[in-house]
Amino acid sequence: MALIVQKYGGTSVGTVERIEAVAEKIIATQKLGNQVVVVVSAMSGETNRLIGLAEEVQGTKTPTGRELDVLVSTGEQVTIALLSMALQKRDCDAVSCTGGQLNIRTDNKFNKARIQDIDGEHLKKLLNDGNVVVVAGFQGVDSEGNITTLGRGGSDTTAVALAAAAKADECQIYTDVDGVYTTDPRVEPNARRLSRITFEEMLEMASLGSKVLQIRAVEFAGKYDVPLRVLSSFEEGPGTLITYEDDSMEDPLISGIAFNRDEAQLTIKDVPDQPGVAAHILGPISAENIEVDMIVQNIGRKDTADFTFTVHRNDYDKALKILENTTIILGGGRIGGNPNIVKLSLVGVGMRSHAGIASRMFKALADEKINILMISTSEIKISVVIEEKYLELGVRTLHEAFELDQATEVKTKQQVQ
Amino acid sequence: MALIVQKYGGTSVGTVERIEAVAEKIIATQKLGNQVVVVVSAMSGETNRLIGLAEEVQGTKTPTGRELDVLVSTGEQVTIALLSMALQKRDCDAVSCTGGQLNIRTDNKFNKARIQDIDGEHLKKLLNDGNVVVVAGFQGVDSEGNITTLGRGGSDTTAVALAAAAKADECQIYTDVDGVYTTDPRVEPNARRLSRITFEEMLEMASLGSKVLQIRAVEFAGKYDVPLRVLSSFEEGPGTLITYEDDSMEDPLISGIAFNRDEAQLTIKDVPDQPGVAAHILGPISAENIEVDMIVQNIGRKDTADFTFTVHRNDYDKALKILENTTIILGGGRIGGNPNIVKLSLVGVGMRSHAGIASRMFKALADEKINILMISTSEIKISVVIEEKYLELGVRTLHEAFELDQATEVKTKQQVQ
Repeated sequence: MALIVQKYGGTSVGTVERIEAVAEKIIATQKLGNQVVVVVSAMSGETNRLIGLAEEVQGTKTPTGRELDVLVSTGEQVTIALLSMALQKRDCDAVSCTGGQLNIRTDNKFNKARIQDIDGEHLKKLLNDGNVVVVAGFQGVDSEGNITTLGRGGSDTTAVALAAAAKADECQIYTDVDGVYTTDPRVEPNARRLSRITFEEMLEMASLGSKVLQIRAVEFAGKYDVPLRVLSSFEEGPGTLITYEDDSMEDPLISGIAFNRDEAQLTIKDVPDQPGVAAHILGPISAENIEVDMIVQNIGRKDTADFTFTVHRNDYDKALKILENTTIILGGGRIGGNPNIVKLSLVGVGMRSHAGIASRMFKALADEKINILMISTSEIKISVVIEEKYLELGVRTLHEAFELDQATEVKTKQQVQ
Repeated sequence: MALIVQKYGGTSVGTVERIEAVAEKIIATQKLGNQVVVVVSAMSGETNRLIGLAEEVQGTKTPTGRELDVLVSTGEQVTIALLSMALQKRDCDAVSCTGGQLNIRTDNKFNKARIQDIDGEHLKKLLNDGNVVVVAGFQGVDSEGNITTLGRGGSDTTAVALAAAAKADECQIYTDVDGVYTTDPRVEPNARRLSRITFEEMLEMASLGSKVLQIRAVEFAGKYDVPLRVLSSFEEGPGTLITYEDDSMEDPLISGIAFNRDEAQLTIKDVPDQPGVAAHILGPISAENIEVDMIVQNIGRKDTADFTFTVHRNDYDKALKILENTTIILGGGRIGGNPNIVKLSLVGVGMRSHAGIASRMFKALADEKINILMISTSEIKISVVIEEKYLELGVRTLHEAFELDQATEVKTKQQVQ
């Protein structure tokens, strides 16, 4: 008997009708001889409604604190109760569990807690009593019994953590897309669903803006070797399986193209080139909790350096102000910036062993007269920053240049069977 | 330093504005030098919304079971979070507690659990740390950690139980009326607010349909000698204090007139008069969880008995069917019934020592040609069943006959001071 963990997001449980449909899916999975653990999010709109109340009471656009977690955790609690009722109505034994009831132990960082431990024994007992166990995602308790939440979207992490704790055979993330694509189909209509992708590639795809899965959930799944599958709640299909690299696979060169519209670029030129200059520049930025993405440093004109980095577009103005202060402290430097840039990334474990990917990428962009503003590379990805207006053209150009629409179809079919 | 438990119902916390107003009231109480525990209900409408979802999923008008409690308990959890935020915004240290977090231990009767134990020590610790403690009413946990609810309106009980556990000096129930009245002012405009009433009288008033307080809360308060005060959330005023009978009080004869519109009468005539006949009739009724209120048995025609009782009007049809079966088993009896009756009760500890109250009551009704269908009496009340159409006339008649509009004003003022 296999143990399957299924996770259904807010859209999948957004109405009573959809909750009933999810109940049918769960029962079908159980009838195939599986034990089933289900993790659910709040009904779509509910978390925003609750946060809206908190905003009103706290008088701020970014409510925080212990009580926020007490508040928003009710969203998932409503869903577990309703889904359990829907299962019971269909003569399926089901029991709901809040994060606290399953002792999903987290640290005490309210609003963005991290899971530390899960009582897998209690979960196993409920399963062995014949229940479908319906768990509230996104929430836990700290060591003092305070309710914590994992931050928005954290239900994926709950599902993977439960799968790891219970040694599940597969963790299935049901969402409103039917898998991971070579790139965003809204930008490139020829984008193709991948039947498999590695954890590493998925991490790059997720962090680069393919928002199918929460990045922390993928990290977790990779760390504990939990096979992860992304499927659609609304359509039948095998989805995309995320696993460790399989030696028998003939890896395609490139798995996909990720992009991120929300970036902004900041440059500080001609700063005195001395040890610690990078820390002097980035220290005050991170002290203000601004996350920095790409970082490039070049030698500038004699004894000075040029330093460029990207931040989330929302942080652009704030970062610019901080840099102005930094130039005063450093005694020099000219500041520049561009909030209208995007990052485009080619991702694939296959590129490790293949030379020439980068030059092929740069040439394809150059042929379309797309100027590259920054470059950064890793083992399995190459990212470039380009002007925002070239985003769609850039994606389509690379998709075609690397023939991503032409699937390694034979291999895919074998894998699915 | 006194310890005050305050309870605010759903209307009092029905909007963010009202929650803010409640926060102000709490802080005012604290500034008088009191420690404050606050018990809150769900925001008005919220419990009905949640039950509506359960009805939809369970496909029934009366949802039940473990998961219903998981669902509806979120209503109070939302309120404790928002009220705690509102207090914190005003620089008042506050901490919210669910029933589970305060270990409000109940039995395992879902949807209508009873409180068995409260962890008063944890509550005391939170108070001594300088917090206003904001507690979710109406909920607890059983010995296995399952969420339970006390049944609708049970927040009053939570407040009294907490007051008893923490040995509070007073338990204040804030509601949308400013106290307990001699009768319903919508029926008798001359109805008068009582400054004091005894637990016993309050029990009779509450169980007879004066729905200011939950009856179980009054029982609890009486049992643990918790001074209970009913006040308005929206108007200033001393409300009504509910305490043990004070020997120095010169009791008024009658405190008030309660009535209950929701009754129905069932009669079974000419049943063989043998030992155990009452049990034969009522056994099957209570087996179906139908609550019986008044019971009267008369001798009928030779060797037979006439048996009459009242039930909630919703149970009338069901009870009638059961009785039909009972006559078959008993081998005789004619069934009659009337769903259009009401119960009217005169309540007052003073009637114990005063003869003639009953006859004065019956004469007043007879003068208005109101026919009495059933009578039942106790130490401190006299109840009559009359046709529904006479309800308003009956209440006004008795209110006037016992001069309830003419308060024992001098005494009342002394008590308030």
